[in-house]
Amino acid sequence: MTDTAPGTATTSRRYGTRPTMKDVAARAGVGLKTVSRVVNGEPGVTPDTERRVKEAITALGFRRNDSARILRKGRTASIGLVLEDLADPFYGPLSRAVEEVARAHGALLINGSSAEDPEREQELVLALCARRVDGLVVIPAGRDHRYLAPEIAAGVATVFVDRPAGRIDADAVLSDSFGGARDGVAHLIAHGHRRIGFLGDQPGIHTAEERLRGYRTAMAEAGLPVDDAWVSLGPTDPERVRAAAIEMLDAPEPVTALFAGNNRVTVTVVRVLAGRPRPVALVGFDDFELADLLSPGITVIAQDSAQLGRTAADLLFRRLDGAGGEPRRVVLPTRLIARGSGELTPAP
Amino acid sequence: MTDTAPGTATTSRRYGTRPTMKDVAARAGVGLKTVSRVVNGEPGVTPDTERRVKEAITALGFRRNDSARILRKGRTASIGLVLEDLADPFYGPLSRAVEEVARAHGALLINGSSAEDPEREQELVLALCARRVDGLVVIPAGRDHRYLAPEIAAGVATVFVDRPAGRIDADAVLSDSFGGARDGVAHLIAHGHRRIGFLGDQPGIHTAEERLRGYRTAMAEAGLPVDDAWVSLGPTDPERVRAAAIEMLDAPEPVTALFAGNNRVTVTVVRVLAGRPRPVALVGFDDFELADLLSPGITVIAQDSAQLGRTAADLLFRRLDGAGGEPRRVVLPTRLIARGSGELTPAP
Repeated sequence: MTDTAPGTATTSRRYGTRPTMKDVAARAGVGLKTVSRVVNGEPGVTPDTERRVKEAITALGFRRNDSARILRKGRTASIGLVLEDLADPFYGPLSRAVEEVARAHGALLINGSSAEDPEREQELVLALCARRVDGLVVIPAGRDHRYLAPEIAAGVATVFVDRPAGRIDADAVLSDSFGGARDGVAHLIAHGHRRIGFLGDQPGIHTAEERLRGYRTAMAEAGLPVDDAWVSLGPTDPERVRAAAIEMLDAPEPVTALFAGNNRVTVTVVRVLAGRPRPVALVGFDDFELADLLSPGITVIAQDSAQLGRTAADLLFRRLDGAGGEPRRVVLPTRLIARGSGELTPAP
Repeated sequence: MTDTAPGTATTSRRYGTRPTMKDVAARAGVGLKTVSRVVNGEPGVTPDTERRVKEAITALGFRRNDSARILRKGRTASIGLVLEDLADPFYGPLSRAVEEVARAHGALLINGSSAEDPEREQELVLALCARRVDGLVVIPAGRDHRYLAPEIAAGVATVFVDRPAGRIDADAVLSDSFGGARDGVAHLIAHGHRRIGFLGDQPGIHTAEERLRGYRTAMAEAGLPVDDAWVSLGPTDPERVRAAAIEMLDAPEPVTALFAGNNRVTVTVVRVLAGRPRPVALVGFDDFELADLLSPGITVIAQDSAQLGRTAADLLFRRLDGAGGEPRRVVLPTRLIARGSGELTPAP
């Protein structure tokens, strides 16, 4: 790390203390109400007084504080987005889509992540409510959202996305995790596989459980048994996923195909398979960048993360515009993209 | 898209109107000051009155509004992060690192993106200032930040990251774009290349210009001429990059190697090269997921995007804690990771 200080000198100062309207009033020699009138462009101030107030504003570097207007008006023209992980590429297009919709409605997007921690989710959601966002789009980490009920009753429109709310009734926009996983596993079965492993996200996460249900359903529909050793749910960190995959692949009767429950899992499985001589079929839930350029290309169940974000944000703004009625659940379809890895047949 | 409404009926309501302290005071039959005391845990309220106020709060679903406290206290315990693009994977680890530091300081992170539009950057920055964030971390889209000077003078600590501020003197945390690009191009030259193309981001973007300068310097240091046809700067959308790459590769005297100016460019170049029979060497600025699993693996100049975010946020909080002195410029080193694509020798 190098550290070069540019030549231009600036005065040392302390941050975080700002001139107030009171300071402006004192400097201009007028009352607080007069400053407020000038700042908010209200009538009832003589040109000379206005000029004095404006000079004081410039001299002090005073900036209007939106907090005061929020107190008066009730609406803040901002919405909050609570993500699961800012660094998961799945959420990039989703966030961008929510931001585009917010912007089209003249609202600022305030964004934070729970890091898959239910307590942190609650802390963040309540912090956003305390700042009086008009509405929230939430990718929940937790399974119990009763803490949000008073906020929703108090008027904070809330739409859940990617995963539904738990223990409260709220709008939700989801991908068809069950149907997508069932399609993916049926695809592997159609290519001759009988022993198929499922590597998923943590139990308790709605999408992980729905995808597992899709796997079990496809196996049952084909009349295939599921060995307990073929199912592994848990954190998506590479070490856990790698160990679980290797265990299935090195078993006396090894799996010949794997279904990966999300893009984080798929990427690790691709690394594991790259180091092994025997080809193993793979279908992953979620598309990801460069999946088509690997050898073989990775067959995926693609969900449209931008469309999830757009749909959730549109629903949120319809609620803010007064749309009443029961909470809605919107389920978006998934799409199987065959690229090679899911079309490998069982090794003899 | 299917749409299923769950069975539980809820009452239709309008969002965005909330009970105020005044409503609570009216219902409890007390004055506004008494409600304020109860809400803020201040003394001077009899147990019976406190109970009446709390009942009214529960009945009305009243929630405290932080705007009022912000007005009183000056500090908001929040910082703003202005990104270039929420969907660019380079910024994921950077955002997460800024959020971790903010959280360690008990501050909320408010996040938005400029979509590489200087006007939108300014709009977003000023909206964040109007909401009284204590400080800002900015990945600038524009080249003129004089609009921020009054905010900085008014006490908003500001640290630029990835790219420096333009026309004002401000803290900046950068990667060594010049040195990294020079290293990458020298690496290609060391593998026998003489005709090397440079595909970069738009002119006017600091990192794009620094990387081009690194390219030109490495070529000059090796005594190699640079043909104008070997340099292409512009938007990083795949169509533009693809056309520019093909033009260099199909020229009468084609380039034998390419240097890609950032991860968005590299990914497109990888796609272009995948469809061609003759091997072409490639070094890309920025590491990216799966770069090692492509065939050949992609040689990159890696910058530590999480470290950029952490360093910028640490500097911001030091400023907020009173650290004075001249604006600082911190430059983080880059690292060449050889994986195969950058070690290909010129096709005969």
